[in-house]
Amino acid sequence: MSFHSAVDVITTKRDGGELSDDAIAWVLDAYVRGEVAEEQMSSLLMAIYFNGLSQGELNTWTDQMIASGERLDLGGLSRPTVDKHSTGGVGDKISLILAPLVASCGAAVPQLSGRGLGHTGGTLDKLESIPGWRAFLSNDEVRAQLESVGAVICAAGQGLAPVDRKLYSLRDVTGTVESIPLISSSIMSKKIAEGTNALVLDVKVGRGAFIKTIERARELATTMVGLGTSHGVATVAQLTSMNAPLGRAVGNALEVSESVDVLRGTGPKDVRELTLDLARIMVGLVGIDVDPETKLDDGSAYEVYCAMIRAQGGDPDATLPVAALRSTIVASSSGIVQSIDALRVGVAAWRLGAGRARKEDPVSATAGVVCLVREGEAIVAGQPLFELHADDDAHMQQGIGAIEHAVVVGEQLVNTEPLLLDRITK
Amino acid sequence: MSFHSAVDVITTKRDGGELSDDAIAWVLDAYVRGEVAEEQMSSLLMAIYFNGLSQGELNTWTDQMIASGERLDLGGLSRPTVDKHSTGGVGDKISLILAPLVASCGAAVPQLSGRGLGHTGGTLDKLESIPGWRAFLSNDEVRAQLESVGAVICAAGQGLAPVDRKLYSLRDVTGTVESIPLISSSIMSKKIAEGTNALVLDVKVGRGAFIKTIERARELATTMVGLGTSHGVATVAQLTSMNAPLGRAVGNALEVSESVDVLRGTGPKDVRELTLDLARIMVGLVGIDVDPETKLDDGSAYEVYCAMIRAQGGDPDATLPVAALRSTIVASSSGIVQSIDALRVGVAAWRLGAGRARKEDPVSATAGVVCLVREGEAIVAGQPLFELHADDDAHMQQGIGAIEHAVVVGEQLVNTEPLLLDRITK
Repeated sequence: MSFHSAVDVITTKRDGGELSDDAIAWVLDAYVRGEVAEEQMSSLLMAIYFNGLSQGELNTWTDQMIASGERLDLGGLSRPTVDKHSTGGVGDKISLILAPLVASCGAAVPQLSGRGLGHTGGTLDKLESIPGWRAFLSNDEVRAQLESVGAVICAAGQGLAPVDRKLYSLRDVTGTVESIPLISSSIMSKKIAEGTNALVLDVKVGRGAFIKTIERARELATTMVGLGTSHGVATVAQLTSMNAPLGRAVGNALEVSESVDVLRGTGPKDVRELTLDLARIMVGLVGIDVDPETKLDDGSAYEVYCAMIRAQGGDPDATLPVAALRSTIVASSSGIVQSIDALRVGVAAWRLGAGRARKEDPVSATAGVVCLVREGEAIVAGQPLFELHADDDAHMQQGIGAIEHAVVVGEQLVNTEPLLLDRITK
Repeated sequence: MSFHSAVDVITTKRDGGELSDDAIAWVLDAYVRGEVAEEQMSSLLMAIYFNGLSQGELNTWTDQMIASGERLDLGGLSRPTVDKHSTGGVGDKISLILAPLVASCGAAVPQLSGRGLGHTGGTLDKLESIPGWRAFLSNDEVRAQLESVGAVICAAGQGLAPVDRKLYSLRDVTGTVESIPLISSSIMSKKIAEGTNALVLDVKVGRGAFIKTIERARELATTMVGLGTSHGVATVAQLTSMNAPLGRAVGNALEVSESVDVLRGTGPKDVRELTLDLARIMVGLVGIDVDPETKLDDGSAYEVYCAMIRAQGGDPDATLPVAALRSTIVASSSGIVQSIDALRVGVAAWRLGAGRARKEDPVSATAGVVCLVREGEAIVAGQPLFELHADDDAHMQQGIGAIEHAVVVGEQLVNTEPLLLDRITK
């Protein structure tokens, strides 16, 4: 790797040129070392926002992000490994059910997760509402639990693709988050460094997702599937709708509770169906010939869930904390529910205390929203639409303000759209 | 001016939206105060590079740059004020002749100038080769000299549009120099703050200029004329060719000497003609009915030049310093000079010591290039093409390396292109 000038790298990308492998290696390494300044990297990121990265540039960029840190070695396990990543939605508690379900089919699921930001929840925040459960495991603990239980949901180690953390913090304050190559390399560098054999991506599209159009979701999914495949990770992406919240519960303990319902055979149908759908892809990717539905219905998945929670210090039988305050929002008119806006529900849960604006902020375990009606349902004036949960009145009032207009009631019959919009394979 | 979020300002511009006056005022002010970080401003500048600024945004951006500092008050003078700005070329010594010439016609010329960077020279660097001459004057000295002599060429005060200095330093290291609204607001904010009544812009186009195409030059010229006019400065722009060097001399003392030749009635025809052309526009803009050619030919302009140099401590009759070393580059074949590459000649002068890479570097007073042939001229093998001047052998060798291929000799008759390509008025 020879010396390059930061300005030359920036202007090459700005003018639509191709960055050499050597230039990419240099600029990321020099950025970590502080030789390329934050203001130079942010202008490069903005140029990438506008001009993109070619397939070759993106591969090299991702390789260099992986090379900036350690790799988790999952090679010695007796089970094949398969992971899942969701781009984030409202009420998306799928991982809590999916990881033990796929483990119960015979795979190992190393679900290295993050926390919520803004209106979307984080898997770790949800599980931390279980008394005693801990998110931080050593690499040795991860391997041991994958072998013994088959499923781990824990915080991604600081050692994986560390340049991504530095880049993400910068993107967050410089308006350069929404770039497909930057999103793709950020997600995939960590998944590849984690060492999984296979990966399913759940790309959320719609009002409550950060990607609003199917075209852009397809582009992101295709890019990530290409990156995974070229790095030896068997990768499939699903595009799923995030116009309405997934399931009924939005909030940390509320979502754990709904996940347990699904694991025990009840719970909302959309959550069950999407989980089974993803589980079938995952077991298929690692060549396991088991129908996950049998493992959900015979209680095996729930057993693995309990073992997984216990292995990380939690008590799966403990009563989950509940909020001090509850309020019910009722319909002001009769008719048919035309839509439920996932973004408004997500923001309401956030305002109630379930979410955070900055990554260092705490979250409430108990706050959130329970949706009491579904799109297409006929309702009457005065019927409850939402139950809001909060720890104090200030949060409750903010949540009540935010949930306004989340439901649109009209006269038309509604054909609810399918959850699964597309599937992208190599 | 209310609070805005830097990320919102950046993403608005990134997504092609219009920034409100309030948002522009806030972001520039917050940047000066350090509340908007360098990495946020650089990503905003890159977004402006891609999406531009509307006429309204550009006016507000420029207003805010002017408002960041002081304004020079030239209102009390008995003469009308008119200034000139060149976007920079190779061998462009026009200001040295033009300022005293226009003053000799009865106008006051407050020529606040800069230093050279890279392959283009700076007016102050040239005049500093005159023993005793000083570039730094107080605002009171500027006003007094404009009244008594009519012409001042001096360093722009630090108080004019100070945010421009901070922005320019940032643009220089973040690949965001080449943006028409950013270039326009940088140049025009200082000229407007300087308080001139009228302004002529010499926009250089071609190999030796930083703008390479006539279309882009026309866009820059139109933008600057619009900005000047809307701020009450009568502004006209000329687009002039910078494919070949202007005149014969490129270098600091070498260019002063050539300027004096023109002021005394000799010197290269192209320099004389372009100077007269610009002078006619300038006197016209301030309503003075004098043909500058008469003032050049009767010695009045030279008299004002001598008075201007003396007023700033210089001795116009002093012998200029000469370089320790000279080398002659000769033609390797006979034929017709097809082209002389201003960029290569400019880089050679820079390598010989006349220019600088960073603004804090010193320059040689004596180094440079004298061009001994013109485009379209028939030459024979062995005929001298360039005379190189340097202070030491290391610089001389670098200059000899850089001047290679600066002249293309061929068989075809050459129609030399006109210097004046277009004129842009309101």
